[in-house]
Amino acid sequence: MEALTRASMNVCPFVKSTSTQAMRKLANNSGLITKAQVCPVLGPALQSKREYSTPSKVVQAQASDNLAKAPASATAAAVTSSAQILNNFNSNEAAFDYDGSFKDQVSKKREDKSYRYFNNINRLAKEFPKAHLAEEDDKVMVWCSNDYLGMGKNEKLLQVMNKTMLKYGTGAGGTRNIAGHNRHAIALEGELAALHKKEGALVFSSCFVANDAVLSLLGQKYKDLVIFSDELNHASMIVGIRNSRAKKHIFKHNNLEQLEAQLAMYPKSTPKLIAFESVYSMCGSVAPIEAICDLADKYGALTFLDEVHAVGMYGPHGAGVAEHLDFEAHLKSGVASPNYKTVMDRVDMITGTLGKSFGTVGGYIAASANMIDWIRSFAPGFIFTTTLPPALMAGTTESIRIVRRNIEDRINQQLNVRYVKKQFADLGIPVIPNPSHIVPLLVGNAADAKQASDALLEQYKIYVQAINFPTVSTGEERLRITPSPHHSKEVSDQLIEAVDSLWSDMRLKRVADWENIGGHCGVGKLNAKPVENLWTDELLNLRNGDLNENVIDPIVRQLETSSGVRV
Amino acid sequence: MEALTRASMNVCPFVKSTSTQAMRKLANNSGLITKAQVCPVLGPALQSKREYSTPSKVVQAQASDNLAKAPASATAAAVTSSAQILNNFNSNEAAFDYDGSFKDQVSKKREDKSYRYFNNINRLAKEFPKAHLAEEDDKVMVWCSNDYLGMGKNEKLLQVMNKTMLKYGTGAGGTRNIAGHNRHAIALEGELAALHKKEGALVFSSCFVANDAVLSLLGQKYKDLVIFSDELNHASMIVGIRNSRAKKHIFKHNNLEQLEAQLAMYPKSTPKLIAFESVYSMCGSVAPIEAICDLADKYGALTFLDEVHAVGMYGPHGAGVAEHLDFEAHLKSGVASPNYKTVMDRVDMITGTLGKSFGTVGGYIAASANMIDWIRSFAPGFIFTTTLPPALMAGTTESIRIVRRNIEDRINQQLNVRYVKKQFADLGIPVIPNPSHIVPLLVGNAADAKQASDALLEQYKIYVQAINFPTVSTGEERLRITPSPHHSKEVSDQLIEAVDSLWSDMRLKRVADWENIGGHCGVGKLNAKPVENLWTDELLNLRNGDLNENVIDPIVRQLETSSGVRV
Repeated sequence: MEALTRASMNVCPFVKSTSTQAMRKLANNSGLITKAQVCPVLGPALQSKREYSTPSKVVQAQASDNLAKAPASATAAAVTSSAQILNNFNSNEAAFDYDGSFKDQVSKKREDKSYRYFNNINRLAKEFPKAHLAEEDDKVMVWCSNDYLGMGKNEKLLQVMNKTMLKYGTGAGGTRNIAGHNRHAIALEGELAALHKKEGALVFSSCFVANDAVLSLLGQKYKDLVIFSDELNHASMIVGIRNSRAKKHIFKHNNLEQLEAQLAMYPKSTPKLIAFESVYSMCGSVAPIEAICDLADKYGALTFLDEVHAVGMYGPHGAGVAEHLDFEAHLKSGVASPNYKTVMDRVDMITGTLGKSFGTVGGYIAASANMIDWIRSFAPGFIFTTTLPPALMAGTTESIRIVRRNIEDRINQQLNVRYVKKQFADLGIPVIPNPSHIVPLLVGNAADAKQASDALLEQYKIYVQAINFPTVSTGEERLRITPSPHHSKEVSDQLIEAVDSLWSDMRLKRVADWENIGGHCGVGKLNAKPVENLWTDELLNLRNGDLNENVIDPIVRQLETSSGVRV
Repeated sequence: MEALTRASMNVCPFVKSTSTQAMRKLANNSGLITKAQVCPVLGPALQSKREYSTPSKVVQAQASDNLAKAPASATAAAVTSSAQILNNFNSNEAAFDYDGSFKDQVSKKREDKSYRYFNNINRLAKEFPKAHLAEEDDKVMVWCSNDYLGMGKNEKLLQVMNKTMLKYGTGAGGTRNIAGHNRHAIALEGELAALHKKEGALVFSSCFVANDAVLSLLGQKYKDLVIFSDELNHASMIVGIRNSRAKKHIFKHNNLEQLEAQLAMYPKSTPKLIAFESVYSMCGSVAPIEAICDLADKYGALTFLDEVHAVGMYGPHGAGVAEHLDFEAHLKSGVASPNYKTVMDRVDMITGTLGKSFGTVGGYIAASANMIDWIRSFAPGFIFTTTLPPALMAGTTESIRIVRRNIEDRINQQLNVRYVKKQFADLGIPVIPNPSHIVPLLVGNAADAKQASDALLEQYKIYVQAINFPTVSTGEERLRITPSPHHSKEVSDQLIEAVDSLWSDMRLKRVADWENIGGHCGVGKLNAKPVENLWTDELLNLRNGDLNENVIDPIVRQLETSSGVRV
């Protein structure tokens, strides 16, 4: 100890001015190592020692090859010697009460009403959108699934999956590198790259994993990277950005002015990334993608766009909102024109899911060939995990092919959404205004939202999950409804009637009530600018809200005769 | 700027002694914020501002409810004002060359031979262990899959999956909380809890996600947590520990002495976690689970055991090595005795995969009810992701039921492993010694390992992937062979002959060559203690290496007549 102190005195002004007795006391309290971690000199040194102390393993090695090759024995010796110094163990002391602590934390969630009760919902393929509860004859209508287009029940998809499963088995049997790479992965990634008109794509276990793996890798590999993140970004991006340890700025939702002010803080040459979504799932708002690309160009930033709640549903081929913004150009041509850069071309990275509109499970990223090869080569979350089953990948490829051509489903979904939103509006049921397919009904507190959800299920046999804190802010609790192309007018009318009765029974606030208190979440705000739908009247070929479904034919025909849709 | 400087001078001795000119220069170089992050005063303040600057989103909110509820506008204003101060943008400067950088990093991997070339391997259910390459008539024998028991081709499993898919569709259609919780998830988690004799279990997209999600959550929730991690732990655990930001100590592989020295550094009341695997997949070594539990008890630590490469294959019911260590007790009784705590009972958390021995995809953790409810309630990687498809969960439940009862497959696998290891030993082919089912052939450099793997595939139609840096250390490159119960003697003999010829053709080192240079990775080490197999002669009912398969019957009969095997 004395020797250590003497050595330290030569470099540290703090140690120099501390008495030996005080040092000994500090050491015995064992807080010294913790304190040293915030020392500008010792901190980084300790950090690198902890990160890179074993030579043989992957992640450390990848992060820094030079440090990783240092002999393990040196580190081991160092640890042992400090162990001799800092032996703080006393067998008479009680151990930490882990189970009690877990229990306490969960109890607090029950108290603040954020505890989640899962409903047992068994969605029935042949009776979509119906499901049964625990008992097979206890059926309910599902109004909150993210199987947005009902692809999970598609006959063709079921056939392809079963056929592939019989031939290639139930699992991939390995990681992509070891026995788990196959024709199904190649075809699926090809299909995804073609969908987004990118050079390459990479499939992950989920889009949570894709977002986390890619964002965290970028920050770990580029130590100077600064990430600019929309405040409403999904948990997967928040986790990825946190794990990246990159410097970050959070900008207010869709606030371009604040984003620009943040970007301008850095030299143009500093690596930057703007992370955002196209459709925000809990409120249905849509990002100004083109304007964000303009800022990215001006300030030299990468754009990372999560299209999870948009793929399948926007754009002539269902590639998402980025495709939707150049609807005519993409409708007419299956391939990007060399003379015209679309918004989708301008977005550097697009992530999406296979588990919502495409009806199966998994996630992906589409980007340039170099970017894809880089992620493939370095991201532990991609490298060290079992490939999705062959049948699932083959089925999903088929699903994407079906969805790409099926503009009719996209239009029918939007027509159903418009119908439901219009009826709710007429009844004064508070729908949070947005330009997408999400129908969020504002309730405004956790207990009411849960009670409303439970009552819909029990009294009306309608399943709409309550969305409470922490998924949305306290005071913004809601019921989130997601109409599919297969929710018929009859089924929709049942929902509307049920919600109307429930709102009366529970005396929940209607639009006028929110108006009286100055509006909330965009509901009941006087003189608010009307929201323009992404699928405009023109695109739906609707005039003055005329809901004649026959008018969709011209667009469908135009799509079917356009060339280059398939790859 | 001047005002900021003046204000700072009152609190910071560094600012006090720096001239205004020097301060301006520092600000313009934009490194000030970065430097401030390591300041013991400013660092934590900046950190909390960055973490909790938006009120509405999940992860931040979960981390600290009080801070999360601060108004967003205040933070936004703060950011904007610093933006005005630190505008470092110059439009004439070049942006960072992202694509060039990705390309450079991948090129370096090509140069150092760590670039991964994926083989197109299409495993055929009806011809297990055969697969076809890109062309359907170009067939190879797969010797490195992790479909360890060949469950991916199991008829019963295929039937259950297809039947469930036809009824419940191809996808779950939501997260567990929103429309994605169902009878299949409940049954699968019940089956997993019963397998490990724990109160509960939780299914994740993969075991990579399970390990990452649980370890990172523990570190984030328990700021004082210290994690003790075996140096050979899988990438998923390394990533989880990294993301936990907990203080960590890495102990040398299976080194109890060093682990104890590290544990003793902390008071007994300090929360601790020991993270380790049962079977280490690249070398086949096995952890001293019981001794680690002893240390955990003594020092008050949680035990986190990854049984990914053991479930299905060890223990009378395939619950893993922890079950295997009390073979007789578990064989005789399906339920834990209240008077006897088994090793499996003593392990706090067991993680495992559904994608290897159980033949599908996904991962899980089994633990106490409180622990499971806590993870379910707080882990973003569990909460915010789509549930696995109903058919996949139903199939996996069936698979586990089959595997639990099928001790014959476990014994046949071990007999095949012994046969292959013995033949290689007789020919002097260097198998890295271990007590498990992994057969790692030491090659010793990356170029040779890749060449050997390519030659086996092209000349002998045998697929064994080369394992190179960074998965194993440089100089320890190997071919990793995994015999299943379905690799017949004939197929094994083809492998053995091919490897023998290849070793001669390529003049690769045999055991004697390694012996001449003092041994390496346990190969060719004189007077080495012979390794005792987990499946002992006694358990296999073998005498003096007698490979008579009939002798397995008594054990199978004993299992079938024992009570309480099924739940």
